[in-house]
Amino acid sequence: MTTIRDVAKCAEVSVATVSRVMNKNGYVSKEAEEAVLKAIKDLNYKPNSVARSLYHKTSKMIGLLIPDISNPFFPELARAVEDVALTYGYTVVICNTDDDSDKERHYIDALKQKYVDGLILATNQLTMEDYHDLNIPLVMLDRSNNQSTPTVVSKNFEGAKEATELLISKGSRFIAHIRGPYQVKTADDRYLGFKEVVEDRGIAHVVVEAEFNIKSSKQVTQELFDRYPTIDGIFASSDVMAAGVMKATKQLGKRIPEDVQLIGFDGIPLGEMLIPSLTTVTQPIYKMGTIAARLLIKQIEKQPLDIMKYELETKITLGETTRSDSFAKT
Amino acid sequence: MTTIRDVAKCAEVSVATVSRVMNKNGYVSKEAEEAVLKAIKDLNYKPNSVARSLYHKTSKMIGLLIPDISNPFFPELARAVEDVALTYGYTVVICNTDDDSDKERHYIDALKQKYVDGLILATNQLTMEDYHDLNIPLVMLDRSNNQSTPTVVSKNFEGAKEATELLISKGSRFIAHIRGPYQVKTADDRYLGFKEVVEDRGIAHVVVEAEFNIKSSKQVTQELFDRYPTIDGIFASSDVMAAGVMKATKQLGKRIPEDVQLIGFDGIPLGEMLIPSLTTVTQPIYKMGTIAARLLIKQIEKQPLDIMKYELETKITLGETTRSDSFAKT
Repeated sequence: MTTIRDVAKCAEVSVATVSRVMNKNGYVSKEAEEAVLKAIKDLNYKPNSVARSLYHKTSKMIGLLIPDISNPFFPELARAVEDVALTYGYTVVICNTDDDSDKERHYIDALKQKYVDGLILATNQLTMEDYHDLNIPLVMLDRSNNQSTPTVVSKNFEGAKEATELLISKGSRFIAHIRGPYQVKTADDRYLGFKEVVEDRGIAHVVVEAEFNIKSSKQVTQELFDRYPTIDGIFASSDVMAAGVMKATKQLGKRIPEDVQLIGFDGIPLGEMLIPSLTTVTQPIYKMGTIAARLLIKQIEKQPLDIMKYELETKITLGETTRSDSFAKT
Repeated sequence: MTTIRDVAKCAEVSVATVSRVMNKNGYVSKEAEEAVLKAIKDLNYKPNSVARSLYHKTSKMIGLLIPDISNPFFPELARAVEDVALTYGYTVVICNTDDDSDKERHYIDALKQKYVDGLILATNQLTMEDYHDLNIPLVMLDRSNNQSTPTVVSKNFEGAKEATELLISKGSRFIAHIRGPYQVKTADDRYLGFKEVVEDRGIAHVVVEAEFNIKSSKQVTQELFDRYPTIDGIFASSDVMAAGVMKATKQLGKRIPEDVQLIGFDGIPLGEMLIPSLTTVTQPIYKMGTIAARLLIKQIEKQPLDIMKYELETKITLGETTRSDSFAKT
């Protein structure tokens, strides 16, 4: 492999001069600069990135901390981060923390050892103090905070309001909300949006908690209908949860959307694959990922940020789990 | 941060001695060794991994090259690789190549620059020569080759045979196979398994090609039924393709499994979420990923490999897209 010494020899200058040209600092005569650039080109010299890491304490690597890549919300997010990173010459290390703070700390230690240049955080565990001690650029993704860290979220509260309004406008009069875990900010915001609308409109409702997986929401739905057989609308806090609702209603012999209307949240590809296809609140998942990556790289490269908090619009995607008319159930 | 110099000072030895202790090479007196180990412990010294990379030309990083993390087959695979890597102190860089060989080359260059210790390849583009030039350990995952590279695949041929036998045993008499792209080894193997059974058994059949996505298989299914309305069984080369088949049959007013039986391949979580739930050939995806990671790390750490090619068993998961009886259609 060609080394910096070979370049120096070929250009007939010192190693220090080559280094000054490459790092664009310190005085170098125009003649020497040209000789160095020519030698780099002639020898097809690629500066070793590990040596550069050691010198600059940067690695052109960024970390993406997520709960679990097998949760279908995250692959598209990861893909977006990775696409932007690639454009700017960064590689991405994805860390599955399972929302386990020990695992999260372990990863952060490992990444720090490798001089990772910045982190995108889409997990729910560690306090911000733990991260700020790292002294590297951070971006919060799909997770709000009240501090000075740049953040990308979608409008969970507003999206939930729209979903609830839609169920009502299409005739649902007793609506259940299957909310995500307490203390998870996105789940809380969706719950608050739901609550505001049903309370304002005087609509009968019930709220139950489930995990963001199909098994948990299926079970919760079965229990719901045992206790309240007249429920005629369900707003689920995620699309995967909505798939669980569909499984349960099928077993109970309830028809969707004739007997029960259903709306999910996320807009992952799964929704389209279901039969009937899912009406859902679609988040701009890919866009969230690209903005987060861009915000991080701007910080790493010491560029100013115009906006510190991005709150992206959601939109309703109409599927077949809500009725096409605006009247009561058939 | 504590440096190797601090350790040397505290232990009252030279930096070279500390280095010899840490790298376990060269002579060090027992007394000096104890002093160094004590100093490392007292100062909580963690050798800098970037400096170590430069010296040892290793990085404790492995690359995982896949076509696209948003394809639902890959997140579980990636998760498995990552889980094993974590146990052994490695981090994983996931690269989405989109089966584009320029992108693949770009990644390989970037990873090489960072002294990545090894690669797991689950893509279909570059020739093995390109990889062997890298001179680092490799594992092929979900992709066979005839060379000396360690490989992990599942028994695609046998799994496809079982799926086809099942359709016949449950009464299908005119079976379509929606195969994946030509030249993709897994798609070819599944096709060959299908073909062997229908030809042996003298069962009417038709084979069409589609991409491994829902849109392509939906369209192909519509065209199939336009031309051959009496098809009563479909074997799709992936679960996502099977979801596309379900969409198309629904639109055409065909009932599954009463009019048409359907079997997919993969065993991803999507299959269970569908209604009716999908009968499929389940691959041990997580296990494939863990074995691949273990094979790679063994090579990196210069341990002997007992087995060079793992061919893992698939199993049929019975869902509701095949009939429960063994008779002809109702």
